[in-house]
Amino acid sequence: MHPVEELLALFEARFAEDSFGTFPSTLYDPLRYTLGVRGKRIRPLLCLMGSELFDEITPDSFHAAAAIELFHNFTLIHDDILDHAPLRRGQPTAHSRFGLPAALLGGDVLLVYAYEQINRIRKLHLPRILDLFNKVAIQVCEGQQLDMDFESMDPALIPMKDYMDMIGRKTSVLLAGSIQIGAVLGGASDGNARHLYEFGKRLGMSFQVQDDLLDIFGDPGQVGKKPGGDILSGKKTFLLLKAMELCPPHQAGVLAELIRSSRGDRVEKVMEIYSDCHIAEWAEEEKEKFAREAMDHLDQVAVLSSRKAPLREMAANLLRRTS
Amino acid sequence: MHPVEELLALFEARFAEDSFGTFPSTLYDPLRYTLGVRGKRIRPLLCLMGSELFDEITPDSFHAAAAIELFHNFTLIHDDILDHAPLRRGQPTAHSRFGLPAALLGGDVLLVYAYEQINRIRKLHLPRILDLFNKVAIQVCEGQQLDMDFESMDPALIPMKDYMDMIGRKTSVLLAGSIQIGAVLGGASDGNARHLYEFGKRLGMSFQVQDDLLDIFGDPGQVGKKPGGDILSGKKTFLLLKAMELCPPHQAGVLAELIRSSRGDRVEKVMEIYSDCHIAEWAEEEKEKFAREAMDHLDQVAVLSSRKAPLREMAANLLRRTS
Repeated sequence: MHPVEELLALFEARFAEDSFGTFPSTLYDPLRYTLGVRGKRIRPLLCLMGSELFDEITPDSFHAAAAIELFHNFTLIHDDILDHAPLRRGQPTAHSRFGLPAALLGGDVLLVYAYEQINRIRKLHLPRILDLFNKVAIQVCEGQQLDMDFESMDPALIPMKDYMDMIGRKTSVLLAGSIQIGAVLGGASDGNARHLYEFGKRLGMSFQVQDDLLDIFGDPGQVGKKPGGDILSGKKTFLLLKAMELCPPHQAGVLAELIRSSRGDRVEKVMEIYSDCHIAEWAEEEKEKFAREAMDHLDQVAVLSSRKAPLREMAANLLRRTS
Repeated sequence: MHPVEELLALFEARFAEDSFGTFPSTLYDPLRYTLGVRGKRIRPLLCLMGSELFDEITPDSFHAAAAIELFHNFTLIHDDILDHAPLRRGQPTAHSRFGLPAALLGGDVLLVYAYEQINRIRKLHLPRILDLFNKVAIQVCEGQQLDMDFESMDPALIPMKDYMDMIGRKTSVLLAGSIQIGAVLGGASDGNARHLYEFGKRLGMSFQVQDDLLDIFGDPGQVGKKPGGDILSGKKTFLLLKAMELCPPHQAGVLAELIRSSRGDRVEKVMEIYSDCHIAEWAEEEKEKFAREAMDHLDQVAVLSSRKAPLREMAANLLRRTS
């Protein structure tokens, strides 16, 4: 059993030796650049922890963890193109630095390299893991498309249930799949793997609520993005959709208009309405609710409670995070 | 053994039952649309013929053929975005009909569905086929990036050798890989599979020369694109690069300028220079040379000559094609 920090160091040491080509550099530079702006490696860590719940970590789990991190970065590169995002983790995005063609193709080849990692998994496990990986990948694409569809819609017309379905696919399924794939490689029973998948899904929902909170109430220096970026870009968030439900009709109308507008003071105005309607308090509770449900599923995984300590620590860190 | 027409019908019957999701339709409509504008199914046919050289075709080969056709359509969708192409096979391209975001994401999920088909191949063959498929996919992305890199370069500065390397990756490797994958699934020895790969590579080069010829000398009604589209878009082609080599310096200079210009008569002017320098004749010879080399490799495949008839017929059709 490894504490979170040690697992991260083990992953980084293996992940640093990439298997990408070098020619043409116009294709590979954007990849190395994007992967070099390191994220928190949440998904590969969850994969490794999923394995270690049941057994020693094998090379298979490191390959799966690498595939998942490559896939995640593929989605970031393409999503940033679609969102016209100038910054990611405080640095220029791939397309703003290298141009759209190189970012689009760089994303494509990164997805292929994810499958190249999957193919390093032993034959015994390969078909099952490839199946789980494909199912996750398809849902992530579906979630991103739903997010794009919502972008141009009036927030009053998006039911919270549909929004949660979108977030589930776009964000939660990859966290859930990461733990599940790790668990299967560790030898988890179907029942245990299912509980871990559900743990991951709820953790993902909770994670997204925290993301939405950080966008508005986070420290910009730590978050690496402008505060209120979601408001400025008219993005649909848990906070916005809940405010549309909770606020009195006149405020909901103002809110819908503010989100569509290009007024210079729209971040402040939206925040005033969120404050009037106690949206931050609702979001904190919602985050806690998802986190409790996640923990209930983790509790039901039939292994010694002490083995679950790293996953509990990781979950707590994610929901307390400031960036 | 099946004649080409029968193989095509067998493929279409299985390929029509797609395994895509339906929700959100904004993601899946562009896929079904693109796949509905049927191409010639060259690559899946080559895969099935590669198998049938050695044995009866098994479901594995149909899955591989489907994966290859899905992959090919993924590259078309993304390439059309990068080339700002309004038409493909005489119909609006996915991005011009459904917008860039849906085409980008539709391409992404199509690539995942290609791997979903690969995962239907029996465990025995899966790691080898996944490896061959990944290697091809990586080179196709590299080739497309090289093509983008060349786009902004002075044609006088692109050595024919580098141009051929680009075409090799972008076009030929997928034809080569299609036959090779089929052959491996049919039980080909390593030596036979290698000869078939080389057959496919030369066939691909020959195919590309024919493509370049058709762009200028083809019947627009049959080709489905405007004549001289490569000239209008300033694309580097076999014809252009060879003309830069063969024409006297003053004409090469005029040619380089014409390609960069937006003159309304540039297609006619470029065609005049091609005619003066006998570029069409050179291209016809080059096409024949690649085709002969391809056939030499096919001859060396150690199976009864009569089993090679469909591949020979297919190759001849490709090089005589008018669209």
